[in-house]
Amino acid sequence: MSADQDPAERPNYALRRANLRNLLVENRIDALLVTDLINIRYLTGFTGSNAALLVYAWDSSEDRTIICTDGRYITQVGVQVPDLRAEINRASARRVVEIAGEWQTGRVGFESHIMTVEQHRALSALATGLDLVAVSGLVEQLRMVKDAYEVGRLAAACDAADAALATLLERGGIRPGRTERQVARDLEWLMFENGAEAVAFETIVAAGANSAVPHHRPTEAVLATGDFVKLDFGAVVGGYHSDMTRTFVLGQPSDWQREVYDLVHAAQQAGREALKPGVSTRAVDAASRSVIEAAGHGELFVHGLGHGVGLQIHEAPGIAKTGTGTLLDGVAVTVEPGVYFPGRGGVRIEDTLVVRKGGPELLTRTSKDLTVVD
Amino acid sequence: MSADQDPAERPNYALRRANLRNLLVENRIDALLVTDLINIRYLTGFTGSNAALLVYAWDSSEDRTIICTDGRYITQVGVQVPDLRAEINRASARRVVEIAGEWQTGRVGFESHIMTVEQHRALSALATGLDLVAVSGLVEQLRMVKDAYEVGRLAAACDAADAALATLLERGGIRPGRTERQVARDLEWLMFENGAEAVAFETIVAAGANSAVPHHRPTEAVLATGDFVKLDFGAVVGGYHSDMTRTFVLGQPSDWQREVYDLVHAAQQAGREALKPGVSTRAVDAASRSVIEAAGHGELFVHGLGHGVGLQIHEAPGIAKTGTGTLLDGVAVTVEPGVYFPGRGGVRIEDTLVVRKGGPELLTRTSKDLTVVD
Repeated sequence: MSADQDPAERPNYALRRANLRNLLVENRIDALLVTDLINIRYLTGFTGSNAALLVYAWDSSEDRTIICTDGRYITQVGVQVPDLRAEINRASARRVVEIAGEWQTGRVGFESHIMTVEQHRALSALATGLDLVAVSGLVEQLRMVKDAYEVGRLAAACDAADAALATLLERGGIRPGRTERQVARDLEWLMFENGAEAVAFETIVAAGANSAVPHHRPTEAVLATGDFVKLDFGAVVGGYHSDMTRTFVLGQPSDWQREVYDLVHAAQQAGREALKPGVSTRAVDAASRSVIEAAGHGELFVHGLGHGVGLQIHEAPGIAKTGTGTLLDGVAVTVEPGVYFPGRGGVRIEDTLVVRKGGPELLTRTSKDLTVVD
Repeated sequence: MSADQDPAERPNYALRRANLRNLLVENRIDALLVTDLINIRYLTGFTGSNAALLVYAWDSSEDRTIICTDGRYITQVGVQVPDLRAEINRASARRVVEIAGEWQTGRVGFESHIMTVEQHRALSALATGLDLVAVSGLVEQLRMVKDAYEVGRLAAACDAADAALATLLERGGIRPGRTERQVARDLEWLMFENGAEAVAFETIVAAGANSAVPHHRPTEAVLATGDFVKLDFGAVVGGYHSDMTRTFVLGQPSDWQREVYDLVHAAQQAGREALKPGVSTRAVDAASRSVIEAAGHGELFVHGLGHGVGLQIHEAPGIAKTGTGTLLDGVAVTVEPGVYFPGRGGVRIEDTLVVRKGGPELLTRTSKDLTVVD
């Protein structure tokens, strides 16, 4: 089956590059030197650890589009990128700039948010026949809106995380006496059992007072009755990341715990409901944050509301007080408000969703009702 | 027990910063803005995901040394870096440069191999009262030579990998009928069981013809009698990475397999024996590579001989044909020659070692004799 027949089977890399060429024309760039490996994967399918890609603005036949990598990847680049000319050279960016110079390319954009000052100086020194022009976030702009293939992979990654947590709960894996580390390892193992190729990030399991630390790393701390237990974890499938947080109570919740939980739950729902094409990311943050502020706990919600998610666990757009930009149909994001009482405990609830005209598509499906674990 | 009494108990961060100050004086820099998170961890112990550190050359009392991170890490920075002034600001590098400007600091080095062109432009725009000066690899230069604490952690990481592989072999986990992915997951799980806090990189399990791909990712390919099975994997303990490759034969090796194995084994030994303080990295590469070239297979050894290893899986120094620099006592490196016959199979053998005057200290202890797995 070809990519044209079922876009979910294999990414349409040629279409992604065509979309990029439109952006290059808009930005008056003759060619873009892509050095970010994730962006290269997005545009070509190549997953090696050394590559540079040169995409020309006016090159719909792609005669001039070149990928360069080193000798370790000769076989791999042929398999993964059969449709582009491949150069083999360890100094991949350097080689591609040399070729662009030989072709008198003119304005060659480089990814100024990725390229280091040192690399830029070295490339500038050999850039004859072209001008290196700083551009930022062009491919990331394309990556925000997920195609059918990408949503399929994101959903599969979220399914793996949902299934892992369900199995862990069924087996009684979250109970007094176990350590944060044991729970984290079980959760990661179960994600692999459910189809994950990797974990999306270091799993957070935070019990009791540790749940008040937003980015706590699991320790030998032992879970005890009365604890909040906060789990923040995700799976990777086909390169795409899921991201979900749930907070449980071990034993009967106190009034204080129920109050905090209900507050965060309401704030998370408000954030989800604000997700619509055309809405500013700042307005989404405000929709959720205002619920927590109205309860007098604004200063305990110490981070942004969410972030884009895809080939990276954190990508554009950011959803925060200081955010810029507007949501589009097909953008994948997290919504994850939290309230943290230092030394006492905290609650965060997080989903991964896709922005849609008719309301967001929820990919992480584990219940968000207050769950008491005995 | 204090750090002075037993340096293996806790890193002596103050000593590391003192060593850095000496380098700053040598390089005529008034202060260094450290933005690489690994370098910040090395110099302070801080492990959060957002930080900037400012170290002054003439500041043995460390009154002016500042670490800046954001609100998520208020508690953490206090615990991990009790000895330095902490600023809380999301724009950590920006905040630190503002302070350096207020103090009319003069020449402020920045890590030009880490800082992006975009970040540099933004910081330059607000840098009044100071000059931003590109410097490269100063902290990495210090990091090459491992102290007792670091060697202890490297050894523990290598032990976890050794123990995992021994258990996998004992349990018959490498046998015809299993998939590359199953073997990789078992190996990773067993590393956790043996004390790993994370895997050092995505485990490589490559069977049969796949063993000819230097950086093969595990697939559903099934192991079969007659295959080479190449395992390249590592554990992380206390932030330090181990790196080891072993190649087995499933069933009785053919003459061809025995020949390739013996060749790589001899080349690896020659590389290890060349590791001495004062020897150039290029000479170490040549010592091993010449063995493979003499057998007429030089073009099948498509990568460098090895690399430094520590808080990162790949760090200075590189050991390659084009390498520069000289080994010192205490430098931790890998030695990993390989010979790859495309479409047929390949062998790589890799150890992690510490360069010592009396001969290298071998940290990965799994046997390198040709091992037949039935």
